Amino acid sequence: MSVTSPKGFRAAGVAAGLKSTGKPDVALVVNDGPLKNAAAVFTSNRVAAAPVYWSRQVVGDGRADAVVLNSGGANACTGALGFQNTHATAELAAGLLGVSAADVLVCSTGLIGEQLPMDKLLPGLEAAFGRLAADGGPEAAQAIMTTDTVCKEVAHRSEAGWHVGGMAKGAGMLAPALATMLVVLTTDAELTAAELDAALREACRLSFDRADSDGCMSTNDTVILLASGASGVRPDPADFQTQLTSACQSLAQALIRDAEGASHDIAIRVFNAASETEAVAVAKAVARSNLFKTAIFGNDPNWGRVLSAVGTVPESQAAFHPDRLNVSINGVQICRNGGIGDSRDLVDLSPREVAVDIDLNAGSAEATIWTNDLTHDYVHENSAYSS
Amino acid sequence: MSVTSPKGFRAAGVAAGLKSTGKPDVALVVNDGPLKNAAAVFTSNRVAAAPVYWSRQVVGDGRADAVVLNSGGANACTGALGFQNTHATAELAAGLLGVSAADVLVCSTGLIGEQLPMDKLLPGLEAAFGRLAADGGPEAAQAIMTTDTVCKEVAHRSEAGWHVGGMAKGAGMLAPALATMLVVLTTDAELTAAELDAALREACRLSFDRADSDGCMSTNDTVILLASGASGVRPDPADFQTQLTSACQSLAQALIRDAEGASHDIAIRVFNAASETEAVAVAKAVARSNLFKTAIFGNDPNWGRVLSAVGTVPESQAAFHPDRLNVSINGVQICRNGGIGDSRDLVDLSPREVAVDIDLNAGSAEATIWTNDLTHDYVHENSAYSS
Repeated sequence: MSVTSPKGFRAAGVAAGLKSTGKPDVALVVNDGPLKNAAAVFTSNRVAAAPVYWSRQVVGDGRADAVVLNSGGANACTGALGFQNTHATAELAAGLLGVSAADVLVCSTGLIGEQLPMDKLLPGLEAAFGRLAADGGPEAAQAIMTTDTVCKEVAHRSEAGWHVGGMAKGAGMLAPALATMLVVLTTDAELTAAELDAALREACRLSFDRADSDGCMSTNDTVILLASGASGVRPDPADFQTQLTSACQSLAQALIRDAEGASHDIAIRVFNAASETEAVAVAKAVARSNLFKTAIFGNDPNWGRVLSAVGTVPESQAAFHPDRLNVSINGVQICRNGGIGDSRDLVDLSPREVAVDIDLNAGSAEATIWTNDLTHDYVHENSAYSS
Repeated sequence: MSVTSPKGFRAAGVAAGLKSTGKPDVALVVNDGPLKNAAAVFTSNRVAAAPVYWSRQVVGDGRADAVVLNSGGANACTGALGFQNTHATAELAAGLLGVSAADVLVCSTGLIGEQLPMDKLLPGLEAAFGRLAADGGPEAAQAIMTTDTVCKEVAHRSEAGWHVGGMAKGAGMLAPALATMLVVLTTDAELTAAELDAALREACRLSFDRADSDGCMSTNDTVILLASGASGVRPDPADFQTQLTSACQSLAQALIRDAEGASHDIAIRVFNAASETEAVAVAKAVARSNLFKTAIFGNDPNWGRVLSAVGTVPESQAAFHPDRLNVSINGVQICRNGGIGDSRDLVDLSPREVAVDIDLNAGSAEATIWTNDLTHDYVHENSAYSS
C-alpha cells in the first residue's frame, strides 16, 4: 500500500541530516517505465517555492522519470541560490539514474526562508539512490513527514490488473486549491500524459480542494501523478477516474484526520444548493470560521455561529434565504427555517467525527468540505513550530 | 468622555437580569434635540438579527429619538417572535419618551438563537428610563459589555464649540465591514441626516472596516450616529469628518486591544501598493492567516508565513511581483526582494504592539489593518462562551 504498489516503480527514503531529529528526510521515487508519463498540480500561491518553479517546467512536456523529495526545508523565498539548489538536486538524481535533469521533479517541505543544507541533501540523495527498491514506498513516505504523526499511504488494485498507489505529507494547514502538502501518486495503467492531467485535476477538485483545515495555502503544495504502463493494461477511463479520485479522497481525509492539534474531524455538507460551486462556497465559509471551529472544540453545537458564517457569503456567490436555512449537527436539526429547532442538548459532540448538514433550500446540488476544530494544541503547535 | 459628552443627550444603564452574572445589561440613549437626525451602518451578514431588520427601517427616514440596547441576548435567528420582541421594546421606549416607535432604534448582543426574556427586558427598560441623566453615558457603556474587559468610550471637543462622543462594545470577533460590535456615536453639531450618513460611512471605512480580529462577521453589528444640534454650531465639514473618523479609529483600536485572549496587537501596513483597495486586500489576507497569527503569539518573526499569506491574493486583487516584496517586523527588514533579509534574531516581539510593514513595490498607495495574534486564550474563551 504505497507508491511502489503499482508495477514499474522503485523508491527509497533516508535520513540525510536535514531534520535536527535525525529522522528520514530525503525520498526518491523512480518510474522505470516502460511509460514515463506524468502530470502535476501545484499551489496557486503567487509566492511559490523554487522546487515548484522547477517542477512546473519539468512536467510541462508530460514526462518525468523520477521525483526527489525532501523534508526539513521548504526552499521557498530563497532567491536565485534556492533555484540553483533545486537544479543541482535534479542534476545529481539525473546523473545517478542516467536520465535528463529536465525529467526529474523536485519537492521540498519545511521551514520557509532558509537555504537547504546541500552538503547534507546531495549525499542523502546518493544514499537514497543506493537503497532504491521495488518495496521502498513505505520508507519514502516516512521521509517526507514533517509535523505528521502518521504516515499516509494508499493503494487500489483494479480487477482489470492495474494499480494506483500514493503517499502524502501534510498535517493541517490545508486550504483552497491544495495545502502544505506533497502528494505522489503512481499507476501502472497505460495512460497518456494528457489523460493523466485531466484525471488528476478532476480527482484533486473532489478531494484535496475539499479539505480545508485552516484556510492557509502553502508555497510548496504539489500533487504528482506518474504512470509506468507496466501492467500492460489500458484502463476504462471512468474506472480509472473513480479509483484515482478515491485514492485522493483517502489521502485527503488522512491529512484532515492528522491535522495539527485537532480533536474533531468535521464534515460540512451543504445540500439543496443551486449549484455545486455555491455549495462549496457556503461550506468553505463555515470551515473558515474560527468561532465555529472553537465552538466545536468546546463540544458546543453552536448553530448560531454556523448561520453567522453562512450569512457572510454574498448573494453573488450563493443563493439562499436566511429564513429557509436548516442546520443539523450530528443528526439533530437544531436550526429550522433560520430559527430555533430541536434542543441543542440532544446533540452529542463527544465523538471525534462531526457531521454538519446545512440545507440551503435553494436547489438540488451538494458538496462536502472536511475541516477540523480549532484547539489549544493547534495554537501550541503552530506558535512553537516554525514553518 | 461618553455618549452624553455632547449636549442634548441623556443616557442610562441598568441590570435587568438578562445576564446571569447580574451585571448591567440594558441601556437607553435619548436624543433631546433640537435636531433628531440620525444615520447608521449595519452588518452586511445576510443572517441579520431582528433588531438589525428593525433599526434599518427606523433610520430609513434619517430620524431617531432614542436607542435601546441590550446585552445578554442577540435576538438573532429568532423568527417572527424575535421581531415582535424588538418591536415591543421600541413601543415601550416610545411610550415612555412620548415619541413614535418608528423613531426608536434597537440593538442587541449576546447569544444567537435564543428568545429574549421580555419579562426582564421590559421592566429593565422602564428602570433605565427612570435613571436617564445627562451624565448617564458611562453607565450605558457598561450595560452593553459582553466579553469586553474594559468599557470603551470616546469624546472629542471641537474648538468651534461642538462635540463628538461615543461608546462601543465588542471584544474580538471583528471582521470585514463591521464586527460583533455595537457602537453609538453622538454629536451636538448641526448636521443633516444625509451629511451624517456620508460622514459615518467614510469614518467606518477608515476605522471599523480596518479592524479584523478573527474574520468573523456578526449578525448584529450596528454603528449609529445621532445629532442633536444642541451646540447651535454648524461644523466645518472637513473638520467634522476628521473628528468623527478619529473617534471611530479610537474605538476600533480599543476593540482590537480588548480582543478575546489576544497577547499582541498587530498593525499590518501594506505600502507601495498600486491602490488603497489593493493594500487593504493584501493586509487582510495576512490578518486572516491563522498560521501567521499563531507565530506572532509564539514571538516568532515568521516572515515566510507573511509572504505565504500575501501570495494567496490573486493578481486580479493586487499587483505585485513575489521577488520584489519586502517585509519588516518591528522595524527589522527580515525579508528583502522576496528572500532572506536581516537576521530574524534582531526582531524583538516581546512588546504587545507589533508592526508588520509589507512593501509591495507596485505603486504608492497604502493601508493599515489592525488585528491580533491567535492564542490559547482565544480558543479557551470562544470554546467556553456561547455567542
